[in-house]
Amino acid sequence: MENFRFARQAAILGSSVFDHAPGTISLSSGAAYPPCLPNVVNEAIEAVGPLREEAMQYSPLMGLDELRQEICNYVSQDGVFCKPSNVLVTYGAKSAFDLALRTFIEPGDKVIVSRPTYMTAIHIMRTHNVQFIDIGRDEDGILTDELEATLHRMEKNAESMPKVFFDVPDFHNPTGITTTLIRRQQLLQLAQRYNFVICEDDPYRRIRFEGEPVPPIKSLDDSGHVIGLGTVSKILAPGLRVGWAIGDYQIVRRMAMQKSDGGSNAFAQRIVIQMLQSGRVNEHITELIQQMRIHRDVMVNEFSEHIPEARIRAPQGGYFLWIELPEGTDGERLVELGIREGVEVSAGRLSFPNDGSANFIRAAFSFTSEREIEEAIARLGRAWKILKSEQPKLN
Amino acid sequence: MENFRFARQAAILGSSVFDHAPGTISLSSGAAYPPCLPNVVNEAIEAVGPLREEAMQYSPLMGLDELRQEICNYVSQDGVFCKPSNVLVTYGAKSAFDLALRTFIEPGDKVIVSRPTYMTAIHIMRTHNVQFIDIGRDEDGILTDELEATLHRMEKNAESMPKVFFDVPDFHNPTGITTTLIRRQQLLQLAQRYNFVICEDDPYRRIRFEGEPVPPIKSLDDSGHVIGLGTVSKILAPGLRVGWAIGDYQIVRRMAMQKSDGGSNAFAQRIVIQMLQSGRVNEHITELIQQMRIHRDVMVNEFSEHIPEARIRAPQGGYFLWIELPEGTDGERLVELGIREGVEVSAGRLSFPNDGSANFIRAAFSFTSEREIEEAIARLGRAWKILKSEQPKLN
Repeated sequence: MENFRFARQAAILGSSVFDHAPGTISLSSGAAYPPCLPNVVNEAIEAVGPLREEAMQYSPLMGLDELRQEICNYVSQDGVFCKPSNVLVTYGAKSAFDLALRTFIEPGDKVIVSRPTYMTAIHIMRTHNVQFIDIGRDEDGILTDELEATLHRMEKNAESMPKVFFDVPDFHNPTGITTTLIRRQQLLQLAQRYNFVICEDDPYRRIRFEGEPVPPIKSLDDSGHVIGLGTVSKILAPGLRVGWAIGDYQIVRRMAMQKSDGGSNAFAQRIVIQMLQSGRVNEHITELIQQMRIHRDVMVNEFSEHIPEARIRAPQGGYFLWIELPEGTDGERLVELGIREGVEVSAGRLSFPNDGSANFIRAAFSFTSEREIEEAIARLGRAWKILKSEQPKLN
Repeated sequence: MENFRFARQAAILGSSVFDHAPGTISLSSGAAYPPCLPNVVNEAIEAVGPLREEAMQYSPLMGLDELRQEICNYVSQDGVFCKPSNVLVTYGAKSAFDLALRTFIEPGDKVIVSRPTYMTAIHIMRTHNVQFIDIGRDEDGILTDELEATLHRMEKNAESMPKVFFDVPDFHNPTGITTTLIRRQQLLQLAQRYNFVICEDDPYRRIRFEGEPVPPIKSLDDSGHVIGLGTVSKILAPGLRVGWAIGDYQIVRRMAMQKSDGGSNAFAQRIVIQMLQSGRVNEHITELIQQMRIHRDVMVNEFSEHIPEARIRAPQGGYFLWIELPEGTDGERLVELGIREGVEVSAGRLSFPNDGSANFIRAAFSFTSEREIEEAIARLGRAWKILKSEQPKLN
């Protein structure tokens, strides 16, 4: 075995590329529900047929102009008004976030996140060797009072100040909570006062089952402090690998310069343009909402039956359930036992960048059918019983 | 204008996303020749039709297993024998190189390159804040004697040692030179002795017009010190955004962990699988070689007519001509004057990571037709006459 001289960030992350065990029901990833995956045969024929020269060639670093315009139209429905020059097309919201980090962060720079936050975002931030400033959250979203006090103290102590803030304000991953308008306004004021950039990751916004939408932070932004991150992964198909960043043109152009290829696949972009222009995306969203609402309801019911001790707040939208187990529960052990029983959920610990509570798990209801969800939670219930026999104080 | 706190690498690179002026003939990028772009309608229908669930979903971080096997088969024709577990699928060779840098490099770490080297690789390395160790080259490739002396001196002075070496050994971009076997062997020995990783970027290998191929450095590697970077961009279509890295499994798995998305587009991968399995890639390469040879010959002839002072070594393959102008020529000024005349070439200076000679330009013969090449070099000849009138000592 060679003694390769890996960078610190690579050494820490290791090489544990994840493989699913066969026969296991996976509730660990927010993958798309297979029966809802769109049929894009006609769009693909158009993209690689008559538009072959566009599809098969390098494409513009910023993305196809028509797609950038369609993205403006799409987000304008949420009250975000921008020009194509504010839009950068990427391989998804995660890639967009990565480019934002490359644009602002040098190793050791500080990033603000909520406690808990999106586990894959933590992974991406770790590849940039960031320092995490983690702030608590409640039913209204991230605790802006705690954030303000933290920033105030850091400034007083002449510490290096955070440059980037990351959150998922709509149907937060993992907690499912939507940040209130007042918290959004407070956040933006803090960003302006302390000059950090808010990366507002908003993949689930349109997957709302009930309740009233809250305006995106980006829609409140008049100073350029917000980068809106979007994707078609949760509203159309993850396999298309099309997402975007919306921001001040100085920022998005610098993000484009951090790309390491000659622009994303034009034919995937062309398929998305057609789906947006024809209205098929909106039809698809309507179908997804119906399906995901059913999945959520089934999963919430199954938990109340098989793990009645779990505290669950049914989210008003999105793809995930965040399950609080009794104080003292070792959630990672439950994950292990679940895998033995043939079900895969995520340990809540993965959603905490620094130390975090152990008594949480996250379960995605997006990928599996109602029947599979029933079977999966029954299996998890068996794992739970075993855990209780191992940890008698949980009874 | 907001005073955004960009990272150093983003501040240096700026925001000058490139736009082509209309009416200009572009010889500045190694884009594909449009008439040679493949028709993949049938492959696309298969990928998004019967294989919809694969195409539209997140795909494995390492790439589709069938594609990894096909890549093994493809490179085995060059004497590189590896297993699918050694193959990581990426968005192209540049993305693969970027992941390698993320895996090995922390800001300030040293990278060895030749002087000149591939301009976009320089750009990508700059996004990682590397220090460049640039070594000269001659007709046989990079000067391994100079490299050895440099490494020896650095070691003696207890300096931090370079971790990564980057080169394009076949039809080098920009010089067109193919590195000899003995230089490749010497390089590998140096990598083993000084424990750096060779990133062997090999996009043009199969686009050989004449002469005998030289074994890839990867084919000589028995210690895992070489990462082979490949792509379908130059042999099939850049728009597919499918490339790969081949290396020790410890390295390629760590590279996968540095990805910021859920795996590349499965449908682009599926199209490539089909093109490789059906033999259409090899047919396509045969067609490309014929076409690119004609383009090269036309461009070499046009230079001898319109800029007879230029010294040009016709490359035995690849996409580029490297043009040496008389000592003292300001190549950047020629590029400026060329744009005014309606032709775009690249200043040679862009291919030098540190200081570099000014009297070079690079012209791609890949993208434009024979007629356009004729017109383009005639325009450049007019620019050359203007430059000579500005710089009388060139006459």
